[in-house]
Parts: sequence; C-alpha cells; structure tokens
Amino acid sequence: MPQLAPHMTTVPASGIRRIFEIAAQLDDVDMLVIGEPDVPVARHIGDAARRAWSDDRTNYTANGGIAPLREALVAKLARENDLHVDVEQVWVTIGGTQALHQTMGLLLAAGDEVLVPDPGYTTFTMNARMLDAVPVPYVLTPANGFEPDVDELDRLVGDRTRAIVVNSPSNPLGVVYSEQTLARLLDFARRHDLWVISDEVYEYFTYGSKHVSIASLDHDDRVFSVFSLSKTYAMTGVRVGYLVTPKGLAETMRTVQEAQISCVAEPDQHAALAAVVGDHQPVADAREHYRRNLDLATALLDERGIHYLEPTGAFYLWIDVSHASGGDVASWAERLLLAERVAVAPGSAFGRSGEGWIRVCLATEPEVLTRGLSKLPAPTA
Amino acid sequence: MPQLAPHMTTVPASGIRRIFEIAAQLDDVDMLVIGEPDVPVARHIGDAARRAWSDDRTNYTANGGIAPLREALVAKLARENDLHVDVEQVWVTIGGTQALHQTMGLLLAAGDEVLVPDPGYTTFTMNARMLDAVPVPYVLTPANGFEPDVDELDRLVGDRTRAIVVNSPSNPLGVVYSEQTLARLLDFARRHDLWVISDEVYEYFTYGSKHVSIASLDHDDRVFSVFSLSKTYAMTGVRVGYLVTPKGLAETMRTVQEAQISCVAEPDQHAALAAVVGDHQPVADAREHYRRNLDLATALLDERGIHYLEPTGAFYLWIDVSHASGGDVASWAERLLLAERVAVAPGSAFGRSGEGWIRVCLATEPEVLTRGLSKLPAPTA
Repeated sequence: MPQLAPHMTTVPASGIRRIFEIAAQLDDVDMLVIGEPDVPVARHIGDAARRAWSDDRTNYTANGGIAPLREALVAKLARENDLHVDVEQVWVTIGGTQALHQTMGLLLAAGDEVLVPDPGYTTFTMNARMLDAVPVPYVLTPANGFEPDVDELDRLVGDRTRAIVVNSPSNPLGVVYSEQTLARLLDFARRHDLWVISDEVYEYFTYGSKHVSIASLDHDDRVFSVFSLSKTYAMTGVRVGYLVTPKGLAETMRTVQEAQISCVAEPDQHAALAAVVGDHQPVADAREHYRRNLDLATALLDERGIHYLEPTGAFYLWIDVSHASGGDVASWAERLLLAERVAVAPGSAFGRSGEGWIRVCLATEPEVLTRGLSKLPAPTA
Repeated sequence: MPQLAPHMTTVPASGIRRIFEIAAQLDDVDMLVIGEPDVPVARHIGDAARRAWSDDRTNYTANGGIAPLREALVAKLARENDLHVDVEQVWVTIGGTQALHQTMGLLLAAGDEVLVPDPGYTTFTMNARMLDAVPVPYVLTPANGFEPDVDELDRLVGDRTRAIVVNSPSNPLGVVYSEQTLARLLDFARRHDLWVISDEVYEYFTYGSKHVSIASLDHDDRVFSVFSLSKTYAMTGVRVGYLVTPKGLAETMRTVQEAQISCVAEPDQHAALAAVVGDHQPVADAREHYRRNLDLATALLDERGIHYLEPTGAFYLWIDVSHASGGDVASWAERLLLAERVAVAPGSAFGRSGEGWIRVCLATEPEVLTRGLSKLPAPTA
C-alpha cells in the first residue's frame, strides 16, 4: 500500500466521536455527549419532504440550491441577522459542516495559518489540518470571562495567518459575544487583512443575550458566515446548512460545490424550505425546553458544589471536573462512561485549554440530564 | 477583501454546468447536456424515504452510514463486483462526487500529481486543483481505440506522482475497459507504487461487455473505488454514493467524514438501503431504455454521416463535430444552444483532447433525443 498524503497523519480524531462510539456499544447510557436535540422534527417539515419524494423531486438542483430556498434564506438573513445579501451569496450545504469545510478550502493553502478558538469546535482544527494548514489556537479562559483577548490575537498573527474563526454562540462554551466584542474582532481582522469565518449554527438559542452576526458589522467583504438548520429545527440528520459568502464569489462557489457535493439532496432542500418559511413556534418551544434543562442542571450542580460556566447561548454546559480528572480528562471520561454509564464530551476534545473540563449537552430529556449529572463526582469540601 | 488561496484561481469551472445554466434560462431546449436519467425513482425507494421521515429518522448516524446500508453494500460488492470487504471499508458519501473529493484529499498534498483521463470527467481535474495538486492528463485517442497507453503513462510518471484515476465505464466516452486493460493499469500502478482511484458510477450500464472492478484484481491494497446510486437508480438528486477503501483506514475515514459532512442524511440512507436490497427490474428497464436510445441515436447519426464513438457502457454518446466547431467547441456549443435550442456538453469540458467533440446524454426521452440530434450539422460530403 502506498502512503496517504503525509499531512493526513496530523489530523486529530474527534474526541467526541470516540466517546459516542463506545457509548453506542453499551446499554443504558445517559447520553449527554453529542449535540443531538431530543425534540422531534416539526410535522410541516416532514410533510414537505414526503411531498417532494411523492412528486419525484429527486433530481440534481443548481449547485447553490433550489431558488425558493435560497430566496427564503435571503429574506431570513435580512430579517433575523441584519445581513443584506443577494441569492448568489447564499449556498445550501451539507449542514454547517460542509460550509466550514468549503470555506477553509477556499481560504487556506498548505502552510497557511488560521486562528481557532480554544476551547473550540473540533472540526475547525480537523479541517485546517486536512488542508495541511496550521490551526493556531487562541485561548478563551475563565480569567478573561471566556472572551477573546485581542492583544493575544495580535501576538499570534504571523506572515502566513489568513483567517480567524469566530464562533458565537459558542460550542462548547455557550458564550454569546456582544456586538462590541464582535466589532473588536472585526477590527482586528481588518488591521491584519484576515478573513473571518463566523460559525453561527446556534444563532436561535440564546438566553438573555442577543445574537449578532459579525457580517452585519462588516463593510469590506471579509466574512464568511456558516449557518445550519440542524440545531435550530432539530434536524441534524437531514444535513442542511448554508454558507453566506462575500460578494463576487459565485463562479468560484459554483465550481467548489460541483466538485465537493454537486448539490444538497432535493427532498431535503424542500424540507429545509418548509422549516425556514414555516411556523417557528417549535423553535421557541425547543429554546424554552433547553432553558428549563439549563436551570435544572445548574441547580443540581450548585447543590453539589460542582463548578461550571453559566452559558448564555447554545445548549451545552461547560463543567469543571478538574477535581476528579487528574490531568487527563479524555481517559477519565472514558472510565466514567464504562463505570457509570454516562457519556460526556471531554473538554480536551476542544483544545488544550479544555483539559479538566467536560461538555454536557442540555438538549435531552430532563430525567436523562439529571440522572447523568448526578453521576459526576463532586469536589470534596 | 483579502485574497482567496492563490491556487483556487487555477480550478477550472465546469464547462458542462455553464451550458446547463444558460439552458435553464431558456424555454424549449432539448436537454442533452447533463447525466440526469429521465426515468422516475422506483416506488419502493420513495416509500422507504417517506417511512423514514414519518418515523422521524432524522438524526446523526455513524460517520460511515447506518449499519444495515453498509452491510447491504458489503453483500452487493461481493455479489456484483467480486470485492470482498468488511463494513469498515465502506463509507456512505454524498454521491460519487464526495467520495472522489474525499479520496483525492486523503492521497494528495500540495504539488503532488495525479494522472487523469483526457477526455475525462470534469471533477477529476477540479478536485486536484482545489488541493493545489497537479492533474496530469493521459490521453485517450481514437487512434488507440480510446484505451490508455501504458507506455505513455510510464513517461508521465514523475517524483510527485501519487495516483491514477481510472474510469470505466467511462464518462464521457462510454468505453468499458476489459479485465486485461484493468490488469495492465494495476500493474502499471504497482510498478510505480501509485494509488488507483477507480470511478465506477456507471457500473450497471454496459452494453455487451462486462463491468469489472479493478479492486477485484488488487492484492496489495492500492485501490479506492468510487460507487454511486445516482445513475443506477435514477436518484441523482438524492445524493448517495459510497467509497470502498483499502483495509486499515477506518480511523482516518471517520475523521475525514466527520469534518467534511458528518454523515449522509438519514432518510436518504434509508432510501438507498431500499434501492440496494430491493427489486432491480427498474434498473434493467432503464438499461434497456438507454440501449434503445443508443440504437436510435446511432441510426440517426449514421444516416446523416456524423461520426461518433460507439459506446459499450454508461449512457452517453461521444460525437465528432470538428467539421463544424472550428477549433472552439465550447463557444460553438453555446452558439448552438442559443440558435437551435439544443444543449450538449462541449468535449473540451472534459480535457484538451475533447476539442472538436461533444457529449450527448442518452438518458432522456426518445423524442427529445432525436429532435436534439437532428439539429446537429452534418459534414458536407
């Protein structure tokens, strides 16, 4: 067998998927490990998909997606995100996942550097490495309220730095950046002439703070915005998201889409259209459900004296288990899973500064959540 | 706006998509330009998809796909392709498109070279360029019966050559390689320690010759095989294919899938399962339909004295229009579309040696096919 491209050996495996796959082999696991909402897909979304199948709408579409969906997304972006774009800037993708993969591919050549949050979502690092590019972590620490430190960012920029990934509401932290923070990040990007890759897949889930799209503050076309229907409409396994690009890239995007996926499945695009234009009460209900779970979880953790970061968005809880994890939270999470039958994501899966922390998904049944959390060891007083 | 990665400017646009998009703006076009079967998706496939939606099977699946689908594909590969693999070698992808994209990403670093057929399918070249790799065309000429010339291949190999793309049944030519030819190509790859990327998405459509999977002749794990359900089951717009890898790559594949797409949409995987295990009479009917169209088309071209390559597979006809195209078949095809309202794929979209040729899709209604072909100019005697 010949060798794979050498840089492929530098691509880290997902530490979340590892726990998930062990858990999938076991019975009776309280699953708090992946971002999979427990609520069903709303009826009108499934109806649209079934109708598309019945009508044999199973053909190639334009690379960017069916026109009614792209138009609906343009309207949504104007209404909800204060982003005023035309249809040729909106590209329907295989979830936010492929939108991110695509963007990194457009921006990074081998050896280029991209600034990624640490802790931050796993695929930021994986995608950079797959391109033989270098993910440079910028640290989000409790000392700084888990906000990016622009002075540190300035120091991290070098000759090969091309982009910064900004993720708000953030996974795994659940931090929502203020407009001021986003403006500072954009100013930083402008000063160094960097691209901004904005991951906003949790946009609909904020608790008390307002989601702002960084592209709405942008005046010189340097932001790629990654959106997804997965979390919003609890349709993770339908795999529909979209990328909003700066102006003037339609021809390049057409080519990249053609080569990567051709297009998103047509029935799934009809489901997505129904989701975007349809009744949003189920989204509000899901948000209320996650918020109740958050209250439940924090009450339980407070009672037990376990420290955590109070999230203002997304549907995760970032919990300090450093009193138990002994400097290797990944191994500890595996042992916890096998011994106690609770699956949580080790913080180290999200970067070096996640050591000693775990991420728990709140988008689950209250009983599972409370039972799972009660299995975490409390610090000794 | 900062600059895209510099190599992105070297990625050629699809010359097929260009014609398709002009055609989509016009009325009354005879569409012979893309590989979109005109037959409907079989009822049992749509039923399975609708059932999955009704049962809310809309969750993340394992990165490689749902177990029953992977197992059904393992059985199919043993039965139909003489490929004996385990489940961890089979990865469900977004059509053959993403399987190819993924494979190139695994094998090629910036500056590496990959041998691609010329004429050959557009995304071979596009994907290589997207990785800042170099597609090196190997020419398939009428003089050689459109077979690869191994002596030429030997001359094209250099220090950076990593892989060869083999496509049988081929798009656009419709050539089906014999077992002897495939064995020669495999021997060539072995001598130079190259990977083989085998695109077999037209495997079910051969006319008089037998499809052989080159991996069935492989004994040292150097073949990645790209398959698709798109053409076989006329479900192009459902976007399901699969990649069969050499042994021992499961961990890498899991990571790459996670970062590129996470997984294929769950309802679409259930549709795919129904397709693979279900009644194959519709596939036989489709093949017979394409064959009748082929007979119809060749009779018409013979009568008019227009030269073509008689295909033994796929569902295209490779037609010589050099008497009319004046050395720029891409522009000529655009003029033909605007003047005569017939959309054909210019041969130059498939590589330099496609100049003077067009590709016509046979997977259409007989009336459209005959009307479209009758608009082609005949050579003057």
